[in-house]
Amino acid sequence: MSELKPTFELSKEFRELLEQAVEREDTGFVKETMAGVNSADISALLDEVGSEVAKYVIDVLNDEVGAEIIEDLEDDTRNKFLEMFESGELANYLSEMESDDAVDIINELPVRKREEVISQIEDAEMAAHILELMRYDEDCAGGLMAKEMIVANVNWTILQTIDEIRRQGENVEKIYSIYVVDDRYKLLGKVSVKKIILANDNTHIKDIYDKDIESVETYMDEEDVADVMQKYDLVAVPVVNLQGKLVGRITIDDVVDVITEQAEEDMQLMSGIAADVEEDDSIWALSKARLPWLLIGLVGGTLGAWAIGFFEGDLDRNASLAFFIPLVMATGGNVGIQSSTLVVQSLANKSAFDDSFGKRVAKMLLVALLTGIVLALISFLIVYLWKGDESLGQVVGISLIGVVMLSSFMGTTTPIVLDKFGINPALASGPFITTTNDILGIIVYLAMANLLLPH
Amino acid sequence: MSELKPTFELSKEFRELLEQAVEREDTGFVKETMAGVNSADISALLDEVGSEVAKYVIDVLNDEVGAEIIEDLEDDTRNKFLEMFESGELANYLSEMESDDAVDIINELPVRKREEVISQIEDAEMAAHILELMRYDEDCAGGLMAKEMIVANVNWTILQTIDEIRRQGENVEKIYSIYVVDDRYKLLGKVSVKKIILANDNTHIKDIYDKDIESVETYMDEEDVADVMQKYDLVAVPVVNLQGKLVGRITIDDVVDVITEQAEEDMQLMSGIAADVEEDDSIWALSKARLPWLLIGLVGGTLGAWAIGFFEGDLDRNASLAFFIPLVMATGGNVGIQSSTLVVQSLANKSAFDDSFGKRVAKMLLVALLTGIVLALISFLIVYLWKGDESLGQVVGISLIGVVMLSSFMGTTTPIVLDKFGINPALASGPFITTTNDILGIIVYLAMANLLLPH
Repeated sequence: MSELKPTFELSKEFRELLEQAVEREDTGFVKETMAGVNSADISALLDEVGSEVAKYVIDVLNDEVGAEIIEDLEDDTRNKFLEMFESGELANYLSEMESDDAVDIINELPVRKREEVISQIEDAEMAAHILELMRYDEDCAGGLMAKEMIVANVNWTILQTIDEIRRQGENVEKIYSIYVVDDRYKLLGKVSVKKIILANDNTHIKDIYDKDIESVETYMDEEDVADVMQKYDLVAVPVVNLQGKLVGRITIDDVVDVITEQAEEDMQLMSGIAADVEEDDSIWALSKARLPWLLIGLVGGTLGAWAIGFFEGDLDRNASLAFFIPLVMATGGNVGIQSSTLVVQSLANKSAFDDSFGKRVAKMLLVALLTGIVLALISFLIVYLWKGDESLGQVVGISLIGVVMLSSFMGTTTPIVLDKFGINPALASGPFITTTNDILGIIVYLAMANLLLPH
Repeated sequence: MSELKPTFELSKEFRELLEQAVEREDTGFVKETMAGVNSADISALLDEVGSEVAKYVIDVLNDEVGAEIIEDLEDDTRNKFLEMFESGELANYLSEMESDDAVDIINELPVRKREEVISQIEDAEMAAHILELMRYDEDCAGGLMAKEMIVANVNWTILQTIDEIRRQGENVEKIYSIYVVDDRYKLLGKVSVKKIILANDNTHIKDIYDKDIESVETYMDEEDVADVMQKYDLVAVPVVNLQGKLVGRITIDDVVDVITEQAEEDMQLMSGIAADVEEDDSIWALSKARLPWLLIGLVGGTLGAWAIGFFEGDLDRNASLAFFIPLVMATGGNVGIQSSTLVVQSLANKSAFDDSFGKRVAKMLLVALLTGIVLALISFLIVYLWKGDESLGQVVGISLIGVVMLSSFMGTTTPIVLDKFGINPALASGPFITTTNDILGIIVYLAMANLLLPH
């Protein structure tokens, strides 16, 4: 990617070399190969080696790089990993992090160890920041924010502000804006770094600061924070408490993680996975996450069997009828998922004035009618040419139109209704819609056969 | 959200007030109500009113705000909207934008109008930037980058750099880093704004700049750019050409849009929607996007019917057998989607050394066995208690274990194989897996019945 730095080959061969070097305690090899490599790349490498090797590498490097590596490790690797550190060692690494990242790691520790670690952080301000941030729920603005930021009093001059930047500079990795507050720390606005660079040293902040500023409140849900930052193209947003006092700042990197996780979670909900799991979780966790929706599917299948039982006479009279149950069922399922996905997505991109419910449903029914007619014609031809049975062909074709319209209706309205009740509509897109539409499909098809085929 | 600015009620009542004000050409009302409102909020409002009203509002406001509003409009609204502007007016608005946003809008215009608009842009540098950026494909780094950035020669002093910031300041909305180049514009590194603020005026860039810098090349795929920025927590990344010369800069806001679109696209692929559509596209576009997978589902259903035909004798002997086809099919479908979603997600979070293919499949089969046994026991009880038929209960139960294992296998291996061939594995998660598993489920179930039930 970049030609300015040594590129880093994450090959199996290199991993073996590294493991051997650690075994013979060759600190020189580790230091040399890791020099100038981005810490995110080292983390990716350490995710793939044993915890002892990883700890050896981190111990060899300096605390600042070590802290960055620990931040970037995958959760699973890190959890195993944190157990190997003494409280004092951990306290050192945490002191090198921004407060929000430090709190994330402390929250992963066993409760007893947390206090031990915090008590050993030498920087009293950092320890106070961590204790403050631990109060907030992980999923709200307070849980995302860091305490590190540059704050200027509205009455200061540029020179005083630059002094503050010098004082805070070491703690604040990236300055985007300088936040402006009054004597009681109430947020008033911001000054861009560009203005600071270009202004005269004796200019007063109050004469140049920008009163137009977006802020979020500590209790705001993380997804709403993501929406705000995305809508206004912000790279950082100040967080205020109920009294409007500035208490922290959220940066875009944390929000990008929120957006990515949210998309993954919706996709899992849609595919009927009940809990937030990953492929490398335990067999037990994976099975437990998958069973609930499979059991609901089983109940749906039983209801389907019960529905078929109603039409046993028709099936006896025309055995070919059973052949096309899967076709009708599958079409209903597919149409339902398509419809609900589109609705879920347009609900996510919420705009201020939506089309009315009626207008949406009407449009959706027209699309369903159009696709239904195409599918009906093709399926009629298939059945007629294969079975030579014109009336069975008609039954399959006509019921497909009905099933497509019904499934579209269910797929469109269910997420809208769930959304109105404050339930995540992605939940509807998956097995729930499929199961309902399976049963409806069977009933429509066999009822149509009962009506149209000779008794 | 923020208490510092007038909050903006996007109520139906306000929309009507606005429309009336435009009708009586009340510029005062528009100016007054829009003063201090964030342009993104005005865009959201204008997305919901007629194009004439929207154009009137934009004309009343100043060019800079107008340009921001136009950038933030939804694609559909904007397309209708751009037709109403004279080339000269458009040229004015484009001059107020960053070059990447201007190019995005020019690309939406009819080919002939593009040249007209570009020829009327008065700022010659801007026109040249636009022409340069138009060369790049929209989906690569070159298509995402803007020309606006602060660049310093490595031999400059801080004072010279500040002069450059003053010169470029108006064009560059947000400065994150100052990029450092040699005399031939080859990218050497970066200097943070923090260092510029704190350094002495006579310090030379070459003594303080940071040689560790991540960059991307113009032809890099936009999703890879997103991965790089996410991995290294970057808010901006410089873009270099094949010769390593600095040609532009990509900012995180554009990449957040890429990430969001990508997630939407994957979700649509998974749910069997063939093209990138939204709920408010035309009926024809929506039908066309949905039909391909529905037709494949139809083919699958026909193959299912054909498979059932093989076992017609068994169905004749035991009519209840047909009852449980939907149950077995649905379980296979659900398990397949669950498995493939998990695999698709772990493929997306690619790490350097993956578990071996064999290890993944073995684990997945264990999960399938565990869930399969639970489902088998429950379904046996259902069938036995309802139908009083122990051997039919055994057939349903045993075939469910087989179906769950087979569907898990298909759901796990298909995305991995597609990924190896460079095809988006999300494509596999949807109707493809479901259709295949439907057919396999039917065959396993009826074959098991043929083996276990008395002839």
